[in-house]
Amino acid sequence: MSDKRAAAPFSYDGLDRVIHEKARLGVLTSLMSHPKGLPFGDLKQLCGLTDGNLSRHLQVLQEAGLVEIDKRFVRNRPLTTCRITSAGRRRFLDYLAILEQVVRDASEAAKSDPAMNPKTKLQPV
Amino acid sequence: MSDKRAAAPFSYDGLDRVIHEKARLGVLTSLMSHPKGLPFGDLKQLCGLTDGNLSRHLQVLQEAGLVEIDKRFVRNRPLTTCRITSAGRRRFLDYLAILEQVVRDASEAAKSDPAMNPKTKLQPV
Repeated sequence: MSDKRAAAPFSYDGLDRVIHEKARLGVLTSLMSHPKGLPFGDLKQLCGLTDGNLSRHLQVLQEAGLVEIDKRFVRNRPLTTCRITSAGRRRFLDYLAILEQVVRDASEAAKSDPAMNPKTKLQPV
Repeated sequence: MSDKRAAAPFSYDGLDRVIHEKARLGVLTSLMSHPKGLPFGDLKQLCGLTDGNLSRHLQVLQEAGLVEIDKRFVRNRPLTTCRITSAGRRRFLDYLAILEQVVRDASEAAKSDPAMNPKTKLQPV
């Protein structure tokens, strides 16, 4: 455990805000499971997002270097393909390690839940 | 699996934004593990937050009914104690169940990482 983590165990500094946002977390998880990339329409459906919302979040992810957007014509029709970059993969895996720590901490904390342990009684401190 | 989850498996609708915000996630995890409540100063230190930041996030959590703030004088000194409410506990546990799903999905997705599986090669789609 680092000094920082020892001093502020619940600060979760590594929880990258670009990735942590709920919609972007869904987008990146989808793209992680499709390393060859996904057409815009498929990604939209998997994440339950509107065109506008998905575009906005993809822009944030692209500017952060986490995804790349490929626009080309296939059989005379425009096709937008979204792919996670190698840097994106690395940052997502780093984020995931912290998220796993959060889940471990929170599950541990839930054991202190008085509803799960009737012997613990709320008292003024 | 619900119809909604089947249709948009990465939408993570249940990921309550009030709880998901990084600093508030730390605050609630701290309070879950201290069901009797925590003095403001201890909470601030555990979460690595400034006075102003902690106050702002506590206000959001209090307005959402997730925490209660108790201000009183103890030995002639003001003491602010923060406690998670029963509703807060329930909502946190619901949130935690979704977060565990995210971690499962993301860990599964990471297995598709071409760096972890050299046989998978990026190809234009």
